Amino acid sequence: MASERTFSLQVIADHLEAELQGDPSYLISGIATLQQATSRDLSFLANPTYKKYLPDSQAGAILLAPDEADDFEGNALVLNNPYLGYAKISHWFSVQAQPAGYIHPSAVIANTAKIASSASIGANAVVEADVIIGENVAVGAGVVIGQASEIGADSYLAANVTVCHGVLVGERVTIHSGAVIGADGFGFAHYNNEWHKIAQLGGVIIGNDAEIGANTTIDRGALDNTVIGCGVKLDNLIQIAHNVVIGDNTAVAGCVGISGSTKVGKNCTIAGGSGLAGHLTIADNVHITAMALVTKSIREPGSYSSGAGSSMPTAEWKKLVVRYRQLDKLAKRIKTLEQQLSAGA
Amino acid sequence: MASERTFSLQVIADHLEAELQGDPSYLISGIATLQQATSRDLSFLANPTYKKYLPDSQAGAILLAPDEADDFEGNALVLNNPYLGYAKISHWFSVQAQPAGYIHPSAVIANTAKIASSASIGANAVVEADVIIGENVAVGAGVVIGQASEIGADSYLAANVTVCHGVLVGERVTIHSGAVIGADGFGFAHYNNEWHKIAQLGGVIIGNDAEIGANTTIDRGALDNTVIGCGVKLDNLIQIAHNVVIGDNTAVAGCVGISGSTKVGKNCTIAGGSGLAGHLTIADNVHITAMALVTKSIREPGSYSSGAGSSMPTAEWKKLVVRYRQLDKLAKRIKTLEQQLSAGA
Amino acid sequence: MASERTFSLQVIADHLEAELQGDPSYLISGIATLQQATSRDLSFLANPTYKKYLPDSQAGAILLAPDEADDFEGNALVLNNPYLGYAKISHWFSVQAQPAGYIHPSAVIANTAKIASSASIGANAVVEADVIIGENVAVGAGVVIGQASEIGADSYLAANVTVCHGVLVGERVTIHSGAVIGADGFGFAHYNNEWHKIAQLGGVIIGNDAEIGANTTIDRGALDNTVIGCGVKLDNLIQIAHNVVIGDNTAVAGCVGISGSTKVGKNCTIAGGSGLAGHLTIADNVHITAMALVTKSIREPGSYSSGAGSSMPTAEWKKLVVRYRQLDKLAKRIKTLEQQLSAGA
Repeated sequence: MASERTFSLQVIADHLEAELQGDPSYLISGIATLQQATSRDLSFLANPTYKKYLPDSQAGAILLAPDEADDFEGNALVLNNPYLGYAKISHWFSVQAQPAGYIHPSAVIANTAKIASSASIGANAVVEADVIIGENVAVGAGVVIGQASEIGADSYLAANVTVCHGVLVGERVTIHSGAVIGADGFGFAHYNNEWHKIAQLGGVIIGNDAEIGANTTIDRGALDNTVIGCGVKLDNLIQIAHNVVIGDNTAVAGCVGISGSTKVGKNCTIAGGSGLAGHLTIADNVHITAMALVTKSIREPGSYSSGAGSSMPTAEWKKLVVRYRQLDKLAKRIKTLEQQLSAGA
Repeated sequence: MASERTFSLQVIADHLEAELQGDPSYLISGIATLQQATSRDLSFLANPTYKKYLPDSQAGAILLAPDEADDFEGNALVLNNPYLGYAKISHWFSVQAQPAGYIHPSAVIANTAKIASSASIGANAVVEADVIIGENVAVGAGVVIGQASEIGADSYLAANVTVCHGVLVGERVTIHSGAVIGADGFGFAHYNNEWHKIAQLGGVIIGNDAEIGANTTIDRGALDNTVIGCGVKLDNLIQIAHNVVIGDNTAVAGCVGISGSTKVGKNCTIAGGSGLAGHLTIADNVHITAMALVTKSIREPGSYSSGAGSSMPTAEWKKLVVRYRQLDKLAKRIKTLEQQLSAGA
Repeated sequence: MASERTFSLQVIADHLEAELQGDPSYLISGIATLQQATSRDLSFLANPTYKKYLPDSQAGAILLAPDEADDFEGNALVLNNPYLGYAKISHWFSVQAQPAGYIHPSAVIANTAKIASSASIGANAVVEADVIIGENVAVGAGVVIGQASEIGADSYLAANVTVCHGVLVGERVTIHSGAVIGADGFGFAHYNNEWHKIAQLGGVIIGNDAEIGANTTIDRGALDNTVIGCGVKLDNLIQIAHNVVIGDNTAVAGCVGISGSTKVGKNCTIAGGSGLAGHLTIADNVHITAMALVTKSIREPGSYSSGAGSSMPTAEWKKLVVRYRQLDKLAKRIKTLEQQLSAGA
């Protein structure tokens, strides 16, 4: 899906503020890994593991750190952080989703919605009453934006996203397909063996530069808002419950669940499949490893884990599970041994 | 997102059958926590943890239990269960999603569908052949309701819900955005290293007063139906496999998976991230804690758990994981010690 | 939801290449379990557990293995694999979703899309520029197919599926509602405490005969493609990250997450709720049990597990969790005991 757009090395070097080694007029029309690149592609070396592929790479030019560039004879763009350079230039080769300023005639847009002239709205999208959509926003096909929600400038809502009523989305936010922002939080009063629904009257606020993955759900608050900080990155199939607050630039991997009213700090990372209980406070700069269960607040930065470790052959594992169930008895037997030995001594 | 509707304390007290302490004509136009409430808001004290916020709360009136009300000098509505009172009155401040009896002209509705005159159908929704939609049902934008499905009176399907064919939804059911009801169960016959699909001929039945969370999936049965009981509450991103039966008033938190043909009793709670194997029977009044794995039937009411507990610093945890893998050997070493000591005694 | 179609036993026997015992002209109009079947239904005995229901079954005819058929006096279709026979014949009783060759007038189809004459497109579906749709494809209501994607012959996309741009779907593929194929992978360069997005320029390739469950997400590759092999079966709410490769005929149960660039072999099974870290290699014929965490490559076929086993009463479990946290100390105490005993001996 690389586009047909073509750029000279000089233009790319200027954009990345990289030092150009080689032919400034050389033309690049795609990006690829060292192994897959052809002479028309730009590539990069960011991870030392892949250095072995450098000598034989067919890439037309390569983003390299200074110490790798000295011995390299091909075209190179030399910069301190080749991976960051790759991130920045990658967008030049991305397919543009929708033309700016075009509202598809099949979209249903309420009279009271205010849509910036440079925004685009896809086919069969629905924009309800009092919605405000900023400049250069791209709304994909089949998206529904509920009453009185606001989408900040330069944001992108992919096809079939649902933004419920009263949700505030910041600028330069990306929301991927199937994500649901602002569904009711899971709030009920339990009485007489029945669950009495509590109307969820808060909203959702998503900060600038956030990214929300496919089929991720962010519930609206019960009374106050659910808040996703600026620069937060949420992967796919994540559940963010009502009144959760996530600090700026925290990244959360797929299949994580964060329960109601938990506050996660800034610059945290939460690995895939983890679960956080409700009403916790997680400090800034906390890192949680894969499939961890967090039921207590974490007050200090650092890495945290739970569980019984990685997989092993099932036959071995079954023995451990049996022993795990005996663990309290085993500990008591150790105690008894110690007492016997102590008494015998 | 609180509406602009305003109610006198007297009207609220009458609705909740609460004793009014203070000014009956005092006007309330919202609900908020004790800390956030302004003089126009109603608040409530349900959890003793928040009692510290009572003296300084700016709330216009507060829902209080009798023993809290005695010393309180502001406007109060006194009732035995303030949290239940909050649940009941919260709906008065909720935004109404759609006008009753309005079918958006962009909705596509089969000729053979029967839609009650008070039901509303949102923009770009699709209602297929032989669907029956009851009184006061609200169908959101972009919803698809498949052939011959039925939606009971007073139910609400939020935007972009998918109800497949032959699904029976009860009365007063809420289904949140992105939920998929009645996709094929995961059924295949394995033969010659290939998976031969089994047509999923059963349906899904959802009882009255159930609530289904955003992006939750409930598969149709293989031959018989998948059944969600009355008053069941399912949070977001839950997977309910084919032929599962969930008893009345059971509540399931986010990211839970329940495998095929498992029967969960009434009045159970299943905490977030748990997984239930297939073909199990779970008794009534069973409570399963977060991220538990259940591979055997549970015949007695009570609380059940699995796993290795909550998170800890990763460095500490790594030591435990190493020891866990040694557990069978450690147990044998204890046995050896016991034998040595016994022989030596 | 069984259709009203009716077939004689002879016709069914011929299709399954089964030996007919009983009345060839007997008419069958549905399939049901031994317990639920009426005289108009076909049933089957595949699992010995259900043999007890055979004598009293009211089924009009039963699929039986040869050794069960000898003593059976009713109508029987005798074949070596009754479960496979049930799988094959089940499709005769399934409701047909859409008429072939019909494009609903509300569907929005780009001029440059090429749609085979026998394909059908549902109401309010959106087919973007340069899409290619093969013969007999059925696209459900509300589906969005992004630019330049291709859907192979005889595939079925259920309502509200999202296929992003540049996705190649093979033949006879089924994608269930809410699934999102080709959203951006979760790729960022971390620099100065911010996450810099990497454009995801790869695509997704889905092999022939694959099935993708409801609300499952398969991300597009960063540079190369994400690849789902032929005959792969993915259940609901699964996350497949960018550049994952899944080998032919592997089956993955619900709520599994597979992290970026991991390669899963052929003929594997991954049970519900499991999580695989990124950049792993999993051999062919590997079976991973429920809720397992896999953080290392698996080079040998076989069954693999992790975790602390199934649930138990919470009170018991709490003791084990306390002991688990003491495990390193317990192991050291065993060591000390051994040293003491050895010194004393």
